[in-house]
Amino acid sequence: MNTNPKFAVIGGGSWATAIAKMLCHNLDEIAWYMRSESAIEEIKLNKHNPNYLSAVEFDIDQLILTNDINEAVSYADYIIFAVPSAFLGKEMQKLTADISNKIIISAIKGIIPETNSIVGEYFMQTYDIPQENIAVIAGPCHAEEVALERLSYLTIASGDLNKAEIVANCLRSHYIKAKISDDIIGTEYASMLKNIYAVACGMAHGLGYGDNFQALLMSNAIREMKKFIKQVHKMKRNINDSAYLGDLLVTGYSLFSRNRMFGNMIGKGYTVKSAQMEMNMIAEGYYATKSAYDMNLELKAKTPIINAVYDILYNGKEPKKVFKKLTEKLD
Amino acid sequence: MNTNPKFAVIGGGSWATAIAKMLCHNLDEIAWYMRSESAIEEIKLNKHNPNYLSAVEFDIDQLILTNDINEAVSYADYIIFAVPSAFLGKEMQKLTADISNKIIISAIKGIIPETNSIVGEYFMQTYDIPQENIAVIAGPCHAEEVALERLSYLTIASGDLNKAEIVANCLRSHYIKAKISDDIIGTEYASMLKNIYAVACGMAHGLGYGDNFQALLMSNAIREMKKFIKQVHKMKRNINDSAYLGDLLVTGYSLFSRNRMFGNMIGKGYTVKSAQMEMNMIAEGYYATKSAYDMNLELKAKTPIINAVYDILYNGKEPKKVFKKLTEKLD
Repeated sequence: MNTNPKFAVIGGGSWATAIAKMLCHNLDEIAWYMRSESAIEEIKLNKHNPNYLSAVEFDIDQLILTNDINEAVSYADYIIFAVPSAFLGKEMQKLTADISNKIIISAIKGIIPETNSIVGEYFMQTYDIPQENIAVIAGPCHAEEVALERLSYLTIASGDLNKAEIVANCLRSHYIKAKISDDIIGTEYASMLKNIYAVACGMAHGLGYGDNFQALLMSNAIREMKKFIKQVHKMKRNINDSAYLGDLLVTGYSLFSRNRMFGNMIGKGYTVKSAQMEMNMIAEGYYATKSAYDMNLELKAKTPIINAVYDILYNGKEPKKVFKKLTEKLD
Repeated sequence: MNTNPKFAVIGGGSWATAIAKMLCHNLDEIAWYMRSESAIEEIKLNKHNPNYLSAVEFDIDQLILTNDINEAVSYADYIIFAVPSAFLGKEMQKLTADISNKIIISAIKGIIPETNSIVGEYFMQTYDIPQENIAVIAGPCHAEEVALERLSYLTIASGDLNKAEIVANCLRSHYIKAKISDDIIGTEYASMLKNIYAVACGMAHGLGYGDNFQALLMSNAIREMKKFIKQVHKMKRNINDSAYLGDLLVTGYSLFSRNRMFGNMIGKGYTVKSAQMEMNMIAEGYYATKSAYDMNLELKAKTPIINAVYDILYNGKEPKKVFKKLTEKLD
C-alpha cells in the first residue's frame, strides 16, 4: 500500500465522511476540513461525526481535523472537494494557500451556480489548474452504504490516468472497487445531469405515475443524457458504464435521494420554496436544471425531460400539465 | 377506431387479463380462452377474473369466454398467447384448428422448454408461421399497473410493421401508449434475458448486497444483454430503448417481480426446489437461464451474470461464493 500521497477531504457532510472513511483504510493520516467547530470537537471526543453517517467510527490518530481550509489544503497534495456545489465558491473565498500544484479531485455532483460550470471547469478556469491535475469521483455510490461497508463501485476519471490510479488505490478496500477512466468531462456531466433526472423521477412519483412509467422515464433519461454529453464533449464512451447509467439508476431509484425527494414534493404540489424549506436544503438538481437548460440553448441536444423539469421549477408551470405533455414525447 | 380485427387472448393469468382489458377499450368483442371453467363461470357471473387482477371489471357482452382453445383460435385473426412459456406446449397439443393464416402474437416472456426456443421461433419452426405473421408485445409493463390504469408504454415488434401497427392500435388507450418496432428477435430475447437478470438482482438482494451494487449489476446487465442479442441477431438497435432497458429496469427493480422474488429466496439460502414449492410456481427466469446458457455455448458472448445464475441454479454452487467471484468481473 502506497502511504505516500497526502490527502485532504474538504467538507463535513455524508459524502465527505464516507470518503474520509474510505481513505482511512489505506492511509496513516488524512487532513479533514469542515466548517463546524463543534462537529470537529465531537469527532475528537466520540470518534463519530455527529451529523452525518454517525455510525462510522474513526481512529482519531489518523485525522488532522481542522476548520481552517488553508491548513488542510497546505498539508495535502490531493484535495478532495465534497461540499455542496452551491457552497464551494464561499469556501474558496477563504482560501489563501496556493493550490496551483495540487491535484484537485471533485466529489461534488453539481454545478457551481456563480459560474454555471462543472467543478473541473471551475478549477481550470478560476484557478488555472491544468486538466491533468483534475479528477472526479463518480458512483453509483450512496454514502449510507459506504458506512455499512456494502460493496460499492467507484469510477475515478482524470485527464491523467496515473493520478486517477493513485486516487483509486487510496479508496479501494474490501467493500470498495474503483476503476479509472479518462472521460473526466462526461463523467462530471453525468453526475450533474442524473440529479435532474432524479428530480424528474420524484415528480413523476409525486404525480402518481407508477413503476412502468418510472422505467420508461429512466430509459429515456439515459438516451437524453447520452445526447447532451455528446454535444458537450464527443468521445468514445459507453453510456451504460456504471459511472453514467449505474449512477443514474442508484439516484433515480433511491427513495433516499434528496433530489428525488425534492421532485416528489414538487409533484405533490409544494412550491419550490416550500419544498426547499421543508427539506432544509436545496437539492443539487435544482441548480443543475437551470445550468443544463441554459447550456442546452447552445448545445441544442433534444432534452424533453430537462425542459420539463425546467418549466416546472423555473417557469412556474403546473407539474401535472407539463408531465402530461412530456409523456407524449417519450417512447 | 378499427373494429374489424378479431382478437383472441389465450391465457387466464394476470398478463392475459391485462391484455383483455386493453383490447376491450377498442374492440366490441374479443375471444378469451382460459383453462379454468370455474374462472370463466365467475367472470360471467361477477365480471371479474377471480384469480388475477380481480379489481378489473369487464363488460361481459364484449367477451366470448371459452375453455376450448380451438373455439377461441377459430374465431380470431389475431391470437395473443399469454400463458407461461412452460405451459404453451401443453396448450398447443389441444389445438386442432388451423393457425397457418393467423397472426400469432407472443405476450410470453420466456423460452419454450421443450424446444429451447423463443416463442416466435417456436411458431415459425413448429407451425410454419412466416415471420411477417408473428408479433411480440413487450413492456416495460407490469399487469398490476394496467389494472390501475397507470400510464404504461408498450412496444409491438413484428416482421411486418403494418400488422404491428394494427395490434398497437387495438391496445392503445388513455393510459397505454404503444409504439412499433421491426426488431422482433431482439425484443423477444430481451424479454427473456431480463428475467435472468431479475433473478440475479433478487439473489444479490437475498445475499445482502445493497442499492449501490444493484445499480452496478443493472448497468452490467444491459451491456451483457446487448452483447448476447448482437450475437443472436445483428441489426441496428438502441439497447436503451424502452423495450430493452425499460423492460429490464421494471423487472429488476420491482419487488413484485416473481423472478426477483425467486432469486431473493435462492440468495437467502432456499434450494431451487423449496423456492419453487414456496412460490407455488416456477419463475420464467429459471428456464431462461438454462436456455441462454446453452445457447451461449455457441454464441460465445461474454455473459458473467448469466453464467453465475446458471452455476447457482443448475450446478448447485453456493450463491455467496458465486457472487463473490462475479463481483470481480463486473465494473
